[in-house]
Amino acid sequence: MTATTGRKLRAGIVGGGRGAFIGAVHRIAAQIDGEAELVAGALSSDPATARESAAAWHLPRAYESYAQMARRERELDDGIDFVIVATPNHLHVPVSRAFLEAGIHVICDKPLAVSVAEAEQLASLAAKSPALFALTHNYSGYPLVREARERVRAGALGELRKALVEYNQDWLMAPLERDHNKQAEWRTDPARAGAGGSIGDIGTHAAHLLEFISGRRIESLCADLTTFVPGRRLDDDANMLLRLEGGAKGTLVCSQVACGEENNLAIRLYGTAGGLEWHQQEPNTLIFKPAGGGPWQMLRTGRSGLSEIAAGSTRTPPGHPEGYLEAFGNVYRSFIADVRRVSEGKAAVRDYPTADDGVRGLRFVEAAVRSSTRGAAWEAI
Amino acid sequence: MTATTGRKLRAGIVGGGRGAFIGAVHRIAAQIDGEAELVAGALSSDPATARESAAAWHLPRAYESYAQMARRERELDDGIDFVIVATPNHLHVPVSRAFLEAGIHVICDKPLAVSVAEAEQLASLAAKSPALFALTHNYSGYPLVREARERVRAGALGELRKALVEYNQDWLMAPLERDHNKQAEWRTDPARAGAGGSIGDIGTHAAHLLEFISGRRIESLCADLTTFVPGRRLDDDANMLLRLEGGAKGTLVCSQVACGEENNLAIRLYGTAGGLEWHQQEPNTLIFKPAGGGPWQMLRTGRSGLSEIAAGSTRTPPGHPEGYLEAFGNVYRSFIADVRRVSEGKAAVRDYPTADDGVRGLRFVEAAVRSSTRGAAWEAI
Amino acid sequence: MTATTGRKLRAGIVGGGRGAFIGAVHRIAAQIDGEAELVAGALSSDPATARESAAAWHLPRAYESYAQMARRERELDDGIDFVIVATPNHLHVPVSRAFLEAGIHVICDKPLAVSVAEAEQLASLAAKSPALFALTHNYSGYPLVREARERVRAGALGELRKALVEYNQDWLMAPLERDHNKQAEWRTDPARAGAGGSIGDIGTHAAHLLEFISGRRIESLCADLTTFVPGRRLDDDANMLLRLEGGAKGTLVCSQVACGEENNLAIRLYGTAGGLEWHQQEPNTLIFKPAGGGPWQMLRTGRSGLSEIAAGSTRTPPGHPEGYLEAFGNVYRSFIADVRRVSEGKAAVRDYPTADDGVRGLRFVEAAVRSSTRGAAWEAI
Amino acid sequence: MTATTGRKLRAGIVGGGRGAFIGAVHRIAAQIDGEAELVAGALSSDPATARESAAAWHLPRAYESYAQMARRERELDDGIDFVIVATPNHLHVPVSRAFLEAGIHVICDKPLAVSVAEAEQLASLAAKSPALFALTHNYSGYPLVREARERVRAGALGELRKALVEYNQDWLMAPLERDHNKQAEWRTDPARAGAGGSIGDIGTHAAHLLEFISGRRIESLCADLTTFVPGRRLDDDANMLLRLEGGAKGTLVCSQVACGEENNLAIRLYGTAGGLEWHQQEPNTLIFKPAGGGPWQMLRTGRSGLSEIAAGSTRTPPGHPEGYLEAFGNVYRSFIADVRRVSEGKAAVRDYPTADDGVRGLRFVEAAVRSSTRGAAWEAI
Repeated sequence: MTATTGRKLRAGIVGGGRGAFIGAVHRIAAQIDGEAELVAGALSSDPATARESAAAWHLPRAYESYAQMARRERELDDGIDFVIVATPNHLHVPVSRAFLEAGIHVICDKPLAVSVAEAEQLASLAAKSPALFALTHNYSGYPLVREARERVRAGALGELRKALVEYNQDWLMAPLERDHNKQAEWRTDPARAGAGGSIGDIGTHAAHLLEFISGRRIESLCADLTTFVPGRRLDDDANMLLRLEGGAKGTLVCSQVACGEENNLAIRLYGTAGGLEWHQQEPNTLIFKPAGGGPWQMLRTGRSGLSEIAAGSTRTPPGHPEGYLEAFGNVYRSFIADVRRVSEGKAAVRDYPTADDGVRGLRFVEAAVRSSTRGAAWEAI
Repeated sequence: MTATTGRKLRAGIVGGGRGAFIGAVHRIAAQIDGEAELVAGALSSDPATARESAAAWHLPRAYESYAQMARRERELDDGIDFVIVATPNHLHVPVSRAFLEAGIHVICDKPLAVSVAEAEQLASLAAKSPALFALTHNYSGYPLVREARERVRAGALGELRKALVEYNQDWLMAPLERDHNKQAEWRTDPARAGAGGSIGDIGTHAAHLLEFISGRRIESLCADLTTFVPGRRLDDDANMLLRLEGGAKGTLVCSQVACGEENNLAIRLYGTAGGLEWHQQEPNTLIFKPAGGGPWQMLRTGRSGLSEIAAGSTRTPPGHPEGYLEAFGNVYRSFIADVRRVSEGKAAVRDYPTADDGVRGLRFVEAAVRSSTRGAAWEAI
Repeated sequence: MTATTGRKLRAGIVGGGRGAFIGAVHRIAAQIDGEAELVAGALSSDPATARESAAAWHLPRAYESYAQMARRERELDDGIDFVIVATPNHLHVPVSRAFLEAGIHVICDKPLAVSVAEAEQLASLAAKSPALFALTHNYSGYPLVREARERVRAGALGELRKALVEYNQDWLMAPLERDHNKQAEWRTDPARAGAGGSIGDIGTHAAHLLEFISGRRIESLCADLTTFVPGRRLDDDANMLLRLEGGAKGTLVCSQVACGEENNLAIRLYGTAGGLEWHQQEPNTLIFKPAGGGPWQMLRTGRSGLSEIAAGSTRTPPGHPEGYLEAFGNVYRSFIADVRRVSEGKAAVRDYPTADDGVRGLRFVEAAVRSSTRGAAWEAI
Repeated sequence: MTATTGRKLRAGIVGGGRGAFIGAVHRIAAQIDGEAELVAGALSSDPATARESAAAWHLPRAYESYAQMARRERELDDGIDFVIVATPNHLHVPVSRAFLEAGIHVICDKPLAVSVAEAEQLASLAAKSPALFALTHNYSGYPLVREARERVRAGALGELRKALVEYNQDWLMAPLERDHNKQAEWRTDPARAGAGGSIGDIGTHAAHLLEFISGRRIESLCADLTTFVPGRRLDDDANMLLRLEGGAKGTLVCSQVACGEENNLAIRLYGTAGGLEWHQQEPNTLIFKPAGGGPWQMLRTGRSGLSEIAAGSTRTPPGHPEGYLEAFGNVYRSFIADVRRVSEGKAAVRDYPTADDGVRGLRFVEAAVRSSTRGAAWEAI
């Protein structure tokens, strides 16, 4: 790992070429603070698409395969400092492994893998590797999500009793996977997506958000998974009962056929001293509900009175709404700062989701599938 | 039953004296349209309170017991046309029976009884009685709740897939029942409230609202009931998975310890053609979410384009917010119209919740208790 | 004036028969608390309509003219205690005068009169009369409007700097007055409505609300009045600059052609220590905005922490939305309590809008008309 | 001007160093699409700050003055393609002139100048220059602001009658300019800010937004400007009556002392066929209010049914909230596309605010000052 002081980090990306959605998001998020620059990519498994996509993004170095890219970049004097893994799920682990083994830091999209077993292998590798590994549970980058966590940590809710979390959207109401929609194709294909459909794609986000903010793990769940669209091979809807460490109860609901919903990720927590509510569709407001009947408080991104970490997660003063890309960029900001630390011989801080979160996500998926198969029986995660 | 043409109906009330909450609500709702007048009451089991409460309400006739009231009123030339039952749950059936047997119409608060068995007995009696019986599932009186039902009936949602309903409040966060709060005392006492705590008091409202709007019955449920406040004898929180007739799935959540919530009764339905969302805290807005990505529509109480029944459920033009009392009054309006019909020898229409809804509510309660006892196993309703 | 202890007050109403809007509102508001009963009416200048309307409302005594009603009721042993004046504007003063002179208390719709001169005569008469006079600036009855006033009085805003008030609606976008709409006909007729169209009908509400909450009088204004609908004889839209006592500035905007608005009466006040915001369309929320960047507070009807007067202006616990009719009923509640006081020989409290507010409303109207005529020149009120 | 095909554009920036606010915004906005790269800067008039700021941003080339930068960059083979002017207002014109004269494209913050005269000189120069000139009225970059304009153009409002626009914030409630706050110092200094305080800093945004969306120019205004904070040398609050081309009327309100407001830029338009409402604080929703009483429609960023320009102004699918930086980036996107066009010999499209908008903004400021000085007399713009 080369010195990084006084320069932008160099980044590469695997996946995310033309027709992809999340690639462009990673590209913007990685570069938004001007601390990293995308210089290499293996953007598609199709060579022509890979070349054209690299040109469209002005990437100096385009590769035809991630393996080639890992090999070559490790040998370059100005090789990449880190790689972004933005492929379909089934490639997350192989690609991540290739770069970790090349000593290149990795930031990977979620879910981490297509099975718990595969996720654990990667986590084990990541634990031993000198290279860093981050998982983009991007919603944890929202300033007010971080504020929520800080408030919970500080005891603002007292003892947690109830947790309601959901992620409802509608983009898979129709069988898009039969209509050459690349996004839909791999997300509904068990071989590429893993055992979870909606629960893997968005349920894992909801579960992560809940554990991230509440600081409590989901201990067990009762899941009722459904495939509403005929012919679809994975669930597109789920309803779950949850039990959390420490005695709180709740529900997790997700759907990709919830008519009219965009990305309605929302969380409500209720404790003995207070409640919190946050909606991703209006992410610059966090509602705090004190016990005792006092008025709800509308916390806003960037306003005074927020915690240091929330205040440090904005790029503008209050009144300038920030959104999804900035939140995604906050995960990158933390990761990039850690890459710099490591390159300067300092200890990593790892204040971003890691491979362990990824293992946990897969355990959530597999527990939900087991529970649903057994008639919504309680399953431990 | 005497002729009612050209005059206000005469009403009596049992329960609802000083210290009660729901009595005043019934009094206002019954009289809001000027079609009925409260003239008699057995307002408390304590004679002094009964007398004082009757005087405070300017009631010409105060009784010391409901039995006395039923006996006397049937004999008067200007006796009451109907009675309002606003007692704790365990008296609903005995009081209702006394008046039905006296040939006096009954409008009773919910839940109907303290057990399915007791509810069924009353329903059986009501079915045979010439007197009418109404149950005040009052939320069904909101104009936009009625609009929602009409739209579902008309196919606006297509095939229902997902239903999320909740009723969260926080007034029982503290053990008020140990602090001489009359409302809390009987609501947390199995002998007076029945087998359900929060699920009986508010869960039944949520279940009724769901079935009322969707037109689909809850077939089975997995319930996880909790008593969070130490020493409390009934549940104060519940999370449930639902399966509905026709294949829809969903959740029902209720709580009386959800910090910061007032009466957050809310429903969201998602079908193949559209979605609907309504919140009791802002009851004059109903959101319709069309399939295909078009804009959400904000329907408002009294605005043009509503169904006949919704339009006929308001007392003012659009722009004049109506609330809980008006909605409650709409149930009375339908009931009073039916009393007039019957007194004129016409057939009853029964366009309000009845004893059958009451039986269904108790089945819901008992199914939830059974399911929870058995570890959230599926139970049919 | 007869004794009123231990009985409901007896009320009469002038105007408000079939085809009217505000009559039914007064009827419900007057009776909502069960403290008054409508027993007499001169509901229409058309005898048949008057009779039929009275029968529809179950009124024991129907009159063909208000003059007859005033004469007869004063002579009855059980004559009315007060009269409701719900006629078009031009009759407010003559009708009110007739009853005041008969020694009968009067509660009258706004605006008080069709001119300042007429309003002042009535105010003068009211001041000398033993009978009480109330003006239904009904929006002052909302619990949270009263809370807002209390907070301003208690210094929550510090020194007021800016005031923005508006009342926008759209029901007169089309020339309904040419289409036999009774409401539109008299409201756009200078002979019956007075010099102001939208400014008289709704602008006076906005002006009253501003002065009521802020405790500051509008000293002067620059008004730009417009008649957008061709052929209409009065303004249907107005924009004004305001200067208030004490140095605050602001705007008042009203319109009856603001496409898509129902009754969007809203106010925002900004001071050195805090801000307040309230919207009539969602009247159960009041937003307080503290200085210093702290979170907005969402005050809710009936929640703890409200002032005594706001708390005393609700009929239900928190979580039961109240609306327009309840707010209207709060003005009646105060007025009725005063009628009882006076009948018991106590001093009147007059905690409701009076003839003086009515005079002020007409001065507002005439100042706006003068200013607009002179090219939006500053005019003192 | 050199060829730009197949590479990122090279950008420089003047102003925006440490302690500035808007510099970082321009940096992110310019680079967000990966189509431009910041390579040079004259970031501060203080040499040490300039050097340190350039290093912090990883700029290869740091200059001590903008004049030096303009001279040098024009001579470099890989000199900048365009310059960002992010200085206090009084330097906008001198800096812009220097670069335009060097043949370098300019994108400049608003307001364009400190006087109409100065603005007109720059506009005249820009008109003759082969180099492009853009003004960052950034709110016009929001997808739904563009959607609003398209809908107005398509006739969705019919004939415009009423326009209400406002920009209220509170950050200058205290005399920060006496407390070494750089942002406050120059913004309240007539020599550096121009004749307008709040009207120049934010009122011009409101005026531009109104004209941008409505397609109607403000013809004349009555302004009441106030300086509420003692000792401040420019207005910190303004209320105005507006008259627009075509007969519409309205108000423009702005304030920097509106307690509790962040950047509450909001607009409402009312026509004969529809109404529109948009709030910058929740920028991903646009409300359309059809005539005839039908339901309001909630348009959302990225949802289907939007115009081509709105759809093309997002970087993510619906459900991923975008904010201020993305909107700012959209102005850059249009400008950068034009720079590429010009470098390829094509005609400029100029689909972004230009120097002419800047002249108009200064005319607005000076008209408001004149009107206020003359007692809120009507002044033409």
